[in-house]
Amino acid sequence: MTMTATADLAAIEAMDAADPLRNLRDRFTLPEGLIYLDGNSLGAASPAAFTELETAARDEWGNGLIRSWNTAGWFDLPVVLGDRIGMLIGAAPGQVVVADTTSINIYKALHAAMSLRPGRKVIVAEASSFPTDLYMAEGVIATLPGATMRLEGVDAPTIEELIDEDVAVVLINHVNYKSGALRDMAALTRRAHEAGAVVVWDLCHTAGALPIALDAADADFAVGCTYKYLNGGPGAPAFIYVASRHLGVANQPLSGWWAHARPFAMERGFEADTGIRRFQCGTQCMLSMRALKGALDVWDEVDLDAVRTKSVALTELFIALVESRCEGLGVTLESPRDSALRGSQVSFLHESAYAVMQALIERGVIGDFRAPSTIRFGFTPLYIGYRDVWNAAVILEDVLRSEVWKDGRFAVRTAVT
Amino acid sequence: MTMTATADLAAIEAMDAADPLRNLRDRFTLPEGLIYLDGNSLGAASPAAFTELETAARDEWGNGLIRSWNTAGWFDLPVVLGDRIGMLIGAAPGQVVVADTTSINIYKALHAAMSLRPGRKVIVAEASSFPTDLYMAEGVIATLPGATMRLEGVDAPTIEELIDEDVAVVLINHVNYKSGALRDMAALTRRAHEAGAVVVWDLCHTAGALPIALDAADADFAVGCTYKYLNGGPGAPAFIYVASRHLGVANQPLSGWWAHARPFAMERGFEADTGIRRFQCGTQCMLSMRALKGALDVWDEVDLDAVRTKSVALTELFIALVESRCEGLGVTLESPRDSALRGSQVSFLHESAYAVMQALIERGVIGDFRAPSTIRFGFTPLYIGYRDVWNAAVILEDVLRSEVWKDGRFAVRTAVT
Repeated sequence: MTMTATADLAAIEAMDAADPLRNLRDRFTLPEGLIYLDGNSLGAASPAAFTELETAARDEWGNGLIRSWNTAGWFDLPVVLGDRIGMLIGAAPGQVVVADTTSINIYKALHAAMSLRPGRKVIVAEASSFPTDLYMAEGVIATLPGATMRLEGVDAPTIEELIDEDVAVVLINHVNYKSGALRDMAALTRRAHEAGAVVVWDLCHTAGALPIALDAADADFAVGCTYKYLNGGPGAPAFIYVASRHLGVANQPLSGWWAHARPFAMERGFEADTGIRRFQCGTQCMLSMRALKGALDVWDEVDLDAVRTKSVALTELFIALVESRCEGLGVTLESPRDSALRGSQVSFLHESAYAVMQALIERGVIGDFRAPSTIRFGFTPLYIGYRDVWNAAVILEDVLRSEVWKDGRFAVRTAVT
Repeated sequence: MTMTATADLAAIEAMDAADPLRNLRDRFTLPEGLIYLDGNSLGAASPAAFTELETAARDEWGNGLIRSWNTAGWFDLPVVLGDRIGMLIGAAPGQVVVADTTSINIYKALHAAMSLRPGRKVIVAEASSFPTDLYMAEGVIATLPGATMRLEGVDAPTIEELIDEDVAVVLINHVNYKSGALRDMAALTRRAHEAGAVVVWDLCHTAGALPIALDAADADFAVGCTYKYLNGGPGAPAFIYVASRHLGVANQPLSGWWAHARPFAMERGFEADTGIRRFQCGTQCMLSMRALKGALDVWDEVDLDAVRTKSVALTELFIALVESRCEGLGVTLESPRDSALRGSQVSFLHESAYAVMQALIERGVIGDFRAPSTIRFGFTPLYIGYRDVWNAAVILEDVLRSEVWKDGRFAVRTAVT
């Protein structure tokens, strides 16, 4: 599909009418009139999530009480949901578990990766990484004498140049949180394996946004959150993928009782489970996890190839509309122009990015500001349509032309990516 | 108050009528007819928790979406709730944060404690500890070359004998999960400090069960869960306490972005927050945390001295009733007889403990089995009355006399402590 600046509203409406995913919008709860281009920060809520949450709270906790750990399947839910996420990221059953946070899962995965390469001490990562990945790598290094980090963008211009025989693990974002740049998973995994290293993929900005083929790419480890494109709810528990060939071999030090081979035997010594449960640690937030279960139910009827096709169409349209309407108004495309190299978001640079985004939010277009000068728009094909894209571009043009963003009444505040 | 075996139902009912906490029962949701003596595994649900959960889900997530991280106070909730828990455990503001799981907080606390005593390599713990404490200590040891563990019950009969100038940290359960034995926090902390060691207290079985005075005891670190006596919901997030004198000094390696001094600046290098946020890691489960907020609201009107007084009365009554009614039926008190040395639970030994507990559950008395031969009953003064205690003892006697527990139809299954 190609869209030009001359696209008119009738064409846009025809695109919505022809959208095979258009009926999924009804599965989500979004305020009337809001254009929500921030599903890559926090995905939209759904009646399915609310229903699961209320059943878990009122029936299972309220009436079932402690019995629900068995009778309602709470204890096994992390692996049950792990397998369901596995279906969305190209992982055969038994390799994914929902647990803890992305940050903590990065810690587990990095330690596990290092345990597979005991003679090697180097972690390779990206200077442009979402920061917590780097912070967790620092934490791992603090607990592994001699370990060091090499950064793409600091120690060499490309990550490939940093991978040699000293490297134990490459920690890499599948899509960059700021620019939306998409990595080639299969190629980079192959490159790392050729040097004898393993790879930890951070899927926060791709799980649920596009087809992922972890097993087919011969991936080693992956982590990701469930509250962006998977719509699991605020701070919903994260997931970790460990390739079956590493299960029972790789070790991680957050060896809590849920990682034990026999958690209820209450044994004194730790003996790690030989399956994916080894990457659990302690008791999980069941209410949050049940909202996630409801959110995942929505995916049963979704074809990820169709999601990607629509995602590309949405981002192409947005780029075309903004670049034609806002020419000369100070916005420059930050995301890759080639859709094959771009995730499901579009970022523009503007010298007053923060104020521009605040003005957009006041007018009902919610995106994200990322310091120092990025306005970021996420396109979630399950509930965003072409008319939303059109409206957002029209409002962005209006904001930039009317210069409301210049009035300086917006104080810098924070948001959670 | 003293109760003897001759107590009759009228006396029991008079005790309930005189109970200053009796009206709190209405703040909880419990199935009609159930005698729930397992609030030390999973505390009861409350309408307050349900209301918070629904507001957080439907209004704040559903309508507020990403904005609720700021407008609904989500981002600060872990420290806000931390201070509220601080009021229940004797901690001045700024020393407690709600985050992650107990197991993960043990890992943070042990590493932080070891960072304060860099020349020392020994962790002292209890062989009778809840196992995850020991498993996490193993994980810490795996990441600290030269570190070792000494166990009370293995390396010496009492923990005091194990504390010498080589010991960095003592990891200890305030109340033992199985026997209910209560430690003297002030005395043991003093003993550790005399040897130059620091202490990590595990408060899972005391937070909300009895008054705790962390600051007054000169405590260093503490961890605990919120889903037992605090009634936060299944797998509700845990908490960690760090004495103010250690804040900004002690380091923990789970250095995620929520522990950063400026989390939203998205800086490349980690710089730890100097307050309690340093003991956070990644994005927290907000829905589960909001249920906990509702549960904590109930505590606003609760006097913990009154809770302890009633708790002692309930456990004394249960011991007296069971020992008189079930004499010769194979039950032996496992918990300390002296109520000053006992938490808010009573454990008995029985050679067919598993089957006995299953028979009790079938008859509507929910307690816990702990291998190999413990039946455990938790007494939660906010929603358990004296009549419940009487009924439980009557049903236990009936089960033991009728020997339904001998029919062997119960398969061993699991439950989460």
